[in-house]
Amino acid sequence: MPKYIDVHRNMTGITAEQLRQAHAADLAIQGEEGVDFQRAWADPDSGVVYCLSNGPSADAVRRVHERAGHPADEIHQVPLEI
Amino acid sequence: MPKYIDVHRNMTGITAEQLRQAHAADLAIQGEEGVDFQRAWADPDSGVVYCLSNGPSADAVRRVHERAGHPADEIHQVPLEI
Repeated sequence: MPKYIDVHRNMTGITAEQLRQAHAADLAIQGEEGVDFQRAWADPDSGVVYCLSNGPSADAVRRVHERAGHPADEIHQVPLEI
Repeated sequence: MPKYIDVHRNMTGITAEQLRQAHAADLAIQGEEGVDFQRAWADPDSGVVYCLSNGPSADAVRRVHERAGHPADEIHQVPLEI
């Protein structure tokens, strides 16, 4: 299944608890879209959050984040990985 | 040791071999800066590459990529991780 990295901006000041809650909200509904969110990293200073997932399409990843209340600003399929 | 995600843009069309070579060039010198590059993901269509590393500072990460010939466009410390 393709792998994706998506990017959220304007999350300046995000806390560990807020990241955990946002991730939990994704996990709660991801199965309905066939997506598997694996990891997430956040930089509270610049307000950027990166999520790594597997899924059937970028639209499926987009829908999970939108439905969870935190739409992504960018979604990139990343077919190359080391 | 802090964790970083850095971003390279304008890599449209990057191949698996080019990503492998770029990563190998980082690994060859990273010890001199105390950096440990862990993973890299590339989207040849949009030309964006993400690298995940541990290191003593963003400047150390920046220096490795510069010396390897592929300076990063953004470097973010990511103290929050799931």
